[in-house]
Amino acid sequence: VRQHNIAVIAGDGIGIEVTASTLEVLRAVQKKVGGFELKFDELDYGSARYKAKGSYTPEGWLEHLRKFDAIFFGAVGDPDVPDHISLWDLILPMRQKFQQYVNVRPSAILPGIPARITNAQVGDLDWVIVRENTEGEYAGQGGRTHVGTPWETATEVSIFTRRGVERVMRFAFEIAQKRPRKLLTVVSKSNAQRYGLVLWDEVAELVSKDFPDVKWDKMLVDAMTVRMVSKPKSLDTIVTTNLHGDILSDLAAGVSGSIGIAHSSSLDPTRESPSLFEPVHGAAFDIMGKNLANPIAAIMSAAEMLRWLGENQAAEIVENACKTSIANGQTTGDLGGKLKTSEVTQVVLELI
Amino acid sequence: VRQHNIAVIAGDGIGIEVTASTLEVLRAVQKKVGGFELKFDELDYGSARYKAKGSYTPEGWLEHLRKFDAIFFGAVGDPDVPDHISLWDLILPMRQKFQQYVNVRPSAILPGIPARITNAQVGDLDWVIVRENTEGEYAGQGGRTHVGTPWETATEVSIFTRRGVERVMRFAFEIAQKRPRKLLTVVSKSNAQRYGLVLWDEVAELVSKDFPDVKWDKMLVDAMTVRMVSKPKSLDTIVTTNLHGDILSDLAAGVSGSIGIAHSSSLDPTRESPSLFEPVHGAAFDIMGKNLANPIAAIMSAAEMLRWLGENQAAEIVENACKTSIANGQTTGDLGGKLKTSEVTQVVLELI
Ligand SMILES: CC(C)[C@H](C(=O)O)[C@@H](O)C(=O)O
Ligand SMILES: CC(C)[C@H](C(=O)O)[C@@H](O)C(=O)O
Repeated sequence: VRQHNIAVIAGDGIGIEVTASTLEVLRAVQKKVGGFELKFDELDYGSARYKAKGSYTPEGWLEHLRKFDAIFFGAVGDPDVPDHISLWDLILPMRQKFQQYVNVRPSAILPGIPARITNAQVGDLDWVIVRENTEGEYAGQGGRTHVGTPWETATEVSIFTRRGVERVMRFAFEIAQKRPRKLLTVVSKSNAQRYGLVLWDEVAELVSKDFPDVKWDKMLVDAMTVRMVSKPKSLDTIVTTNLHGDILSDLAAGVSGSIGIAHSSSLDPTRESPSLFEPVHGAAFDIMGKNLANPIAAIMSAAEMLRWLGENQAAEIVENACKTSIANGQTTGDLGGKLKTSEVTQVVLELI
Repeated sequence: VRQHNIAVIAGDGIGIEVTASTLEVLRAVQKKVGGFELKFDELDYGSARYKAKGSYTPEGWLEHLRKFDAIFFGAVGDPDVPDHISLWDLILPMRQKFQQYVNVRPSAILPGIPARITNAQVGDLDWVIVRENTEGEYAGQGGRTHVGTPWETATEVSIFTRRGVERVMRFAFEIAQKRPRKLLTVVSKSNAQRYGLVLWDEVAELVSKDFPDVKWDKMLVDAMTVRMVSKPKSLDTIVTTNLHGDILSDLAAGVSGSIGIAHSSSLDPTRESPSLFEPVHGAAFDIMGKNLANPIAAIMSAAEMLRWLGENQAAEIVENACKTSIANGQTTGDLGGKLKTSEVTQVVLELI
């Protein structure tokens, strides 16, 4: 049997609830398909640990995590901790340290979920957003001086390296090349931001030469939002910077109606470090403990994880079970259904 | 008669066509209402000048412009010139030099324009986006080293000053306070960007204390896009940073279906320098010279200019004429109509 070691970080809030559902589903599909074994290591990293022990993680956590084949992540965020602390103590260091330089976020209008734009039906919107995930606007540099005085100045420094841009661009062209429409849109803001974003566009030009069969175009991020809501069919694969990818992938989930099922894979394509799989939603303390969270985003993330680990058959079974439950209207409130977290989990388990 | 001196920069592409329409309309309303006189100074700043003489503007242009009461701007951009050059040579220096620190962008679903989201009808979406317009992500600092080598690194430096944030925040709270719903949403990305964007949120907290009757909340820009497409009625006045304001205002125009009429006022509320009024659309070389451009965005910008100059009656007449033409379906192709630029202009002139 193929053995896969998975680090499980349920984290905070509903992250804990949807992770529990996901582990049940993973155990079920492993039993059903056979031939592989998932070994879960459940880690207590998160805000509860921070509040009890003063840190999100134990010493040496990144080196500990490095040994796993993949990381499953629930959510992080706590009303008692400023978000920029919780995120920079837990999720963002993993993206950088493990060089998870691509973040893949698919969006589609699925049967059973009504789209939120007037001109798109099932089949009309099927996008993959490839987001740069380690540098750019999330490089993390910057600072504040004269704090609290009228002379205070703060900076945020975006850093773009040619190697960093090139590797994610190449990944995106490859994805586009493998999809039926072979269509790629490169998004930047190179008119107002004339250093890193101009580099972004230049690298796109260069890399495109190696993919003569991919039709590609460039868009500015502001105009891109209009295109997404007005001409969804004109888009297929999209590649963009860290911040713009964050924004556009939420918008994509919004227009396709799929925010409750949006999932995210932070990949190190070299496979030197573990990749990370997580739902896009956050810790959502307002609905925590009420059995209301939609577990589908987390379960779909786990399906992507199975695919990354080479367990394609298991991945497909999980994904299809999720899609069937949605098409049948067996959903939580966010998708218009009446079921609880545990009931949706049960439906998926039965479909498996 | 009250005299107003207006600098007119038609600029490039369809900017030239819609500016011509706008001047006709302004002359007509001046005649109709009386009591004021607009003196237009038409300046040749733009890409044609750059290609002929090597610069977008003559020496001393900013000092020349400073003497006017307002600036009317068409559009800038030319296929032969990289956008980051044309914009940093013409439009962006004006915003900074004249401390036009607020950019006001209203969006509404108007009778006659079908919205692009499924859950909003006329009256359901009536937003004012207040965008910081001089610093933040458009500060203009940054650079590139090792250009063209594999070691190339580029930076973009966002700069936020406490004074800069406070003045735009205060302006936004005032706008919100004057509107019936007294509702303000402050948008940032203070979870991933932990210096300037955290300052942004802190200043919002402080300024809010002076406006106890304004109900306000904070949103992250990514989640904000979802809220805009899914709960449009929950929003009213919005204040955000330079880049996020750029993105969200295009999205607002996209969801309300009003991209063809979106206009933008870059204001120096101290009135020490001239403010600038322009349509949001660009030079659009693809439709240039075809009499296809929608002149309404430019004409609506001019109405805002009249209001800024204290000519409220004239402003209202122009605005109502635009809205009536739209409600009657007398529109250009982008709004689903069949009229040419000149025909729409004619309709507006007759309504005045
Ligand atoms: C939690 C936060 C740092 C994160 C981001 O902005 O990247 C989230 O919004 C996401 O999209 O994964
Ligand atoms: C032309 C460009 C610099 C500008 C911006 O990004 O501010 C435009 O998109 C706008 O929204 O006014």
